[in-house]
Amino acid sequence: MSPKITTELLKQLRQVMKNPKYVQEPVQAYIVPSGDAHQSEYIAPCDCRRAFISGFDGSAGTAIVTEQHAAMWTDGRYFLQAAHQMDSNWTLMKMGLKDTPTQEDWLVSVLPEGSKVGVDPFIIPADQWKRMSKVLRSAGHDLVPVKENLINTIWTDCPQRPCKPLITLDLSYTGVSWRDKIVALRSKMAERKVMWFVVTALDEVAWLFNLRGSDVEYNPVFFAYAVIGMNTIRLFIDGDRMMDPAVREHLQLDSTLEPEFKIQVMPYGSILSELQAVGAGLSPKEKVWLSDKASYALTEAIPKAYRYLTPYTPICIAKAVKNAAETEGMRRAHIKDAVALCELFNWLEKEVPKGTVTEIIAADKAEEFRSQQKDFVELSFATISSTGPNGAIIHYKPVPETNRTLSVNEIYLLDSGAQYKDGTTDVTRTMHFGTPSAYEKECFTYVLKGHIAVSAAVFPNGTKGHLLDSFARSALWDCGLDYLHGTGHGVGSFLNVHEGPCGISYKTFADEPLEAGMIVSDEPGYYEDGSFGIRIENVVLVIPAETKYNFKNRGSLTFEPLTLVPIQTKMIDVNLLTEKECNWVNEYHQKCREVIGAELERQGRHEALRWLLRETEPLARVQ
Amino acid sequence: MSPKITTELLKQLRQVMKNPKYVQEPVQAYIVPSGDAHQSEYIAPCDCRRAFISGFDGSAGTAIVTEQHAAMWTDGRYFLQAAHQMDSNWTLMKMGLKDTPTQEDWLVSVLPEGSKVGVDPFIIPADQWKRMSKVLRSAGHDLVPVKENLINTIWTDCPQRPCKPLITLDLSYTGVSWRDKIVALRSKMAERKVMWFVVTALDEVAWLFNLRGSDVEYNPVFFAYAVIGMNTIRLFIDGDRMMDPAVREHLQLDSTLEPEFKIQVMPYGSILSELQAVGAGLSPKEKVWLSDKASYALTEAIPKAYRYLTPYTPICIAKAVKNAAETEGMRRAHIKDAVALCELFNWLEKEVPKGTVTEIIAADKAEEFRSQQKDFVELSFATISSTGPNGAIIHYKPVPETNRTLSVNEIYLLDSGAQYKDGTTDVTRTMHFGTPSAYEKECFTYVLKGHIAVSAAVFPNGTKGHLLDSFARSALWDCGLDYLHGTGHGVGSFLNVHEGPCGISYKTFADEPLEAGMIVSDEPGYYEDGSFGIRIENVVLVIPAETKYNFKNRGSLTFEPLTLVPIQTKMIDVNLLTEKECNWVNEYHQKCREVIGAELERQGRHEALRWLLRETEPLARVQ
Repeated sequence: MSPKITTELLKQLRQVMKNPKYVQEPVQAYIVPSGDAHQSEYIAPCDCRRAFISGFDGSAGTAIVTEQHAAMWTDGRYFLQAAHQMDSNWTLMKMGLKDTPTQEDWLVSVLPEGSKVGVDPFIIPADQWKRMSKVLRSAGHDLVPVKENLINTIWTDCPQRPCKPLITLDLSYTGVSWRDKIVALRSKMAERKVMWFVVTALDEVAWLFNLRGSDVEYNPVFFAYAVIGMNTIRLFIDGDRMMDPAVREHLQLDSTLEPEFKIQVMPYGSILSELQAVGAGLSPKEKVWLSDKASYALTEAIPKAYRYLTPYTPICIAKAVKNAAETEGMRRAHIKDAVALCELFNWLEKEVPKGTVTEIIAADKAEEFRSQQKDFVELSFATISSTGPNGAIIHYKPVPETNRTLSVNEIYLLDSGAQYKDGTTDVTRTMHFGTPSAYEKECFTYVLKGHIAVSAAVFPNGTKGHLLDSFARSALWDCGLDYLHGTGHGVGSFLNVHEGPCGISYKTFADEPLEAGMIVSDEPGYYEDGSFGIRIENVVLVIPAETKYNFKNRGSLTFEPLTLVPIQTKMIDVNLLTEKECNWVNEYHQKCREVIGAELERQGRHEALRWLLRETEPLARVQ
Repeated sequence: MSPKITTELLKQLRQVMKNPKYVQEPVQAYIVPSGDAHQSEYIAPCDCRRAFISGFDGSAGTAIVTEQHAAMWTDGRYFLQAAHQMDSNWTLMKMGLKDTPTQEDWLVSVLPEGSKVGVDPFIIPADQWKRMSKVLRSAGHDLVPVKENLINTIWTDCPQRPCKPLITLDLSYTGVSWRDKIVALRSKMAERKVMWFVVTALDEVAWLFNLRGSDVEYNPVFFAYAVIGMNTIRLFIDGDRMMDPAVREHLQLDSTLEPEFKIQVMPYGSILSELQAVGAGLSPKEKVWLSDKASYALTEAIPKAYRYLTPYTPICIAKAVKNAAETEGMRRAHIKDAVALCELFNWLEKEVPKGTVTEIIAADKAEEFRSQQKDFVELSFATISSTGPNGAIIHYKPVPETNRTLSVNEIYLLDSGAQYKDGTTDVTRTMHFGTPSAYEKECFTYVLKGHIAVSAAVFPNGTKGHLLDSFARSALWDCGLDYLHGTGHGVGSFLNVHEGPCGISYKTFADEPLEAGMIVSDEPGYYEDGSFGIRIENVVLVIPAETKYNFKNRGSLTFEPLTLVPIQTKMIDVNLLTEKECNWVNEYHQKCREVIGAELERQGRHEALRWLLRETEPLARVQ
C-alpha cells in the first residue's frame, strides 16, 4: 500500500472552508466523520468522504482538518493501516492510548481564539454534536453546521448515491405485514405519548416496510427515511423504484386504503423540510420520537421541548425479536450455508496440500458454493480468509499484497457469511489441514470451552448479554489467555449482520435484555500475533430453557445454535474437555449429521456428505 | 411495630416552610434525603432526620413534604418496613416498580406553577442536585438551597452531633504515614493539574490522617473535612479531640515542620466559608478536585469553571489497595474473628437443641466471643442473625417482635463482622443444627459452587469486578435459581465495611478495575421467601495469579480468602461438586485447620479446636 497524496485536496478543502459560497463565515476547522446520514456501519462509496480526503479507508476514523493541521482519529485495529494509507500531511491520533487527546481537546489546543468548527449536520449524530459543542463552547469556540458537505464540493468524481431496485418480502419471509408493524409501532408511540416517530436507520426503514435493497454492499438496505404519525405514513425515497409494480402492489400505493395506512412517497432530500414543518406544527405535549443517534440536522428540526430521544428505538427492539417465520427462514438459510461450507472444507482438504489455494481463492470458492444455494443474494460481509499470522489480524481481509497460500503447516481461519432471501449467516471455523501442534490444540480447546460455556449457558429471563461475556473467557483466563474483542453481536434476518440492541460484550452496559427470539453470535477467539488466530463462531437463537426450579416465576433462557457446521475435532484436545463439554460437541455434531446430512443428500452432494460424516465422528474422552 | 404519629410534626414542618426566619421565600415542597453531609452510608442519630419526620428508619429513603402531601421513596428491601413504620399522612413510593414516579416527576405533577422546592444544600449530593434541578427548572419550578435545615428547627430533642475521642494508628497498622499519604495525594493532584483537593467522605479523612473515631456506629470515623493544597493542609474538626496529646503528637501539631506539612486545625462548621475563600482566590487554570458526590453546598463554593469532579477520588482508590501492613492486619483480624466464630458455633451446636437460643441471644453471644479478642473495637455492622423464614429477609436484624428461636429443624444464617484495630471483618455462614433436607443441601451446594467460582476465578489484571458477578450465579441459573443482590463489596481496613471503588455486582459498570491488594467480599446466596435463606460469605484479598501463559504480558489475578471459618460440610451435597470444587473445599478447610487451629491452641480454646477439627474433615466424592 502506498499512501494517497492529499496535498492538493487539503489545499482545496482549506479554500472552501473560507469560501462564502459554502460557509456563512469561514471555519477554522472542518470535521469529516466516518458515517453516512443514517449512522450506518457499512457505507456506500459516495459516503466514503473520510477515505477520499485522507486515503485511510478503515471502517472507523474521524478526520479533522484545520488551516495548519490534518489529523485522523482511529482505534487500535487500524493504527498500522492508517499509517500506511495516509501521507505526511496527516497526523495519526491513536485512540485508546493514554496520551492521545480527544478531538475536542485537540481542537481547543490548536485553534486560535473564537474559532468556528464546521461539520455536516446530516452526518454527525446528535449525541456527538452535543458532547463536542459543549467542550468547544466552554473554550470559546463554536461548532457550526455547514449545510453543504465541503468534501462533496471538491470531490469531482464522487460516485452517484446508489438507487437500486427494491425487493419485496411477503409474509412467508417476514411473518408480519408492514401494516401490522405500523399498528404495533403506533401502539408503542401511544404508550409513550408521542405523536410522531422518525425512522432514520436504514435497516429500520427496510424492516418496517418489509422491503430490501442493495444500495450498500453486504447490507440489503436502501436509502430512505420514514416519518410515522398516528394517522400518516411518509416514506422519503428517491428514484423510480416506486414505479416498480411489485413495490406499488406491496405498499398498496394504488389501492383505496384507510387514510392512516396510505403511504405518502416523498423525495429523499425533502426529509429535513418536511420534518421542520412537522416541528413547526406541534401543539404542546405533542412529542416526536427519534433515536439519540439520529443526525444533528434532523434532531434540530424538532424544537427541543418536543423531542423524545431514546438510545434504542421501538423498531430496533421489535426487529431484534424474530418471529416464527423469520426464525424458520434463519434456520433454512443456515442449513444452506452449512451445505456450502461442507463443500468448501471438503474441497480445501483436497486442494490445500497441492499448495495452490490462496486466501483469496478460498474466499472466492466459499462465495461460489454459497451462490449455488437457493435465494442467495450476496455476502453479508467481506470474507475474512486468513492463514498463519494473518489469522491474528482480527479484521483481516485478504488483498493481493497480503494474500497467503494455505498449507498443511498453518492454521486457517474463515469468518464468512451470506445474505439469503430467508436469512443472514455469519460463521467462523478454524481448521488445520495437516497436524496441529499440541499448543495450537490447547488454545483451540480453550476457545471451544468458552464457546460452549456461552452456547450452553442457562440464565434468567431479563438477563443482559454483557453478563454472559465472562463465561466465554473463563477457560482462557485460567491459563493467562484472553481475546480483545466482544463475544457476540445481534444478527439481522436478511438484514445487517451486525444489529442492536443486544449482544454479548464486556464493553457495553446499555444493551437490552435478551429475550426468546433474539439472535446473536457466539464467537470467542484467541490470537497470537505473528503466528495464528483461532475463532469459533456460531449464530445462536435465544430460546426458553427448561429448568428444575423457577425462581420468582421468571423463567429461564438458553441458546440453540442455528449454525450447523462441524467444529474440527482434529483441533480438540479431548482431555481438556469436561464430560459435559464433550457431550455438547457430540450432540452438536449429531445434529449437524442429521440436519445438514439430510440436505447434502437431498442436493446430491455425496462427497461433501462423506466429509461431514467423517468430521462428525463422536469424540471419546479418556477417563 | 406501630407507626409513628406525624400529624403534628408535619404541621410544624409546613409552618417553617413558610417562615421567613428560615426561608427567603416560602417553599412549596421540602426534600429530606437519607444521608448526612458526607454522603455516609451509616449515619449518626443526629442525622436521622428522615426517620424523625416520618418514622421510617430503613437505611435508604427520601421524604418529600408539600403543603398537601408527604411521600416516601424507598426500594424493595423496605416496602414492608416503611409501610409499617409510617402513619396515614405518608404515601409510600415504591422505587423500582414501573408505575412509581421519580421524585422530580412527582413534584412536577403535584406542585402549583412556579413553585420553590427546598433542600438542605449540605445533605444533597451535587450530582443529584443537578439532575433534580434540571427537571424542575424545565417544568417552571426552582430547586432552592435552604441554609438552615428545616427538620432541625422542629426537632427539639435532636441528639448532639457526636464528638468522641480519636484513635491514632501508627505505622505498624497503616504501613504509610499521613505525611507520605499527603505527598502521594499531591502527586496525583499535580498529575491532574489541580491545586486543591477537598476531602468530604468521612472514611477518606480518617484514612488520610491515620486516625479513627467512633462518631458513627459500626464505622470508625469522625466528623471532619479536609482541604489539601499543594502547600497547605486544613483539617476541619470540632471538639477538644485536638487537645489529646497523642493526637497532637501523631499529627505533629506542636512540632516545627516544613510549612507544607503543617496542619491547620479549623472548626468543622467553617468548611463552607473557608472553601468559598479558596474559590474566590483562584487564578485561571487553578482547579479544585471534589468527588461528584460531594454536597451541593461545598461544590457550589467553587466556581464552576474551577471544579474538577470525579466519581472516585484519588484517596478512595489509594485506600482500596491495601499495603503489606494493612493486609497483615486484615489477616490477623480475620484469624481472631474465626476464633470467635468457632467458639460461637461450638456453643450453638450444644445449646440450640435445648431450645433456649434466640436470634438475639445468638447475635449477642457472637459479639461476646468477638469482644474477647485483642484489639476488638466494635461490630462492623448490625448482626444479621436469622433462622428459618427470617433468613429469607436479606437485610434482617432481629428485634424482639421478630425474634425467633433457633432449632434443629431450621437453617440458621449468621452474617456478622467486627472492627478490630488491625482490620475489619464480614462473614456469613449458614448452618443446620439438625438434619438438612435434600433440597436445602442442594440449594446450599449451588450457592457454594458460586462462591468457589468467584473465589477461585483467575482473570486478567485490569478486569472490573462486575465481570465476575455471573460466575457466582451460574450454578444457580442452571437450575432456574438466582439471588437478587450483588455478589461482593469492597471492605475497608479498620474502616467502613462497605467501601468503593470496587465490588462484584451486575448492577454497576463504573467500578474501578480490581488490582492486587484490594479486598472484597464474595457472598452469593439463595433465598426462599417464607422458608429459609442461604448465604456463604468470605472476605477475599486480590492477589497475583500464576498462570501457564501470560497474554500481552498483562499478568493475572485471583483471590485469597482472608475469612477462615469452616463451611458446614453437613449442608453440602458432595455429588453436585466437581472434583476441582471438592478440592477447593478440602484445601480451604485444611487452611482453616492450620491457621485457626494454631490460634485456638494458642488461646487454649480446646473445645472449639475439637469443633474445628470435626467440621473440617475432608469431603470425599463418590466417583
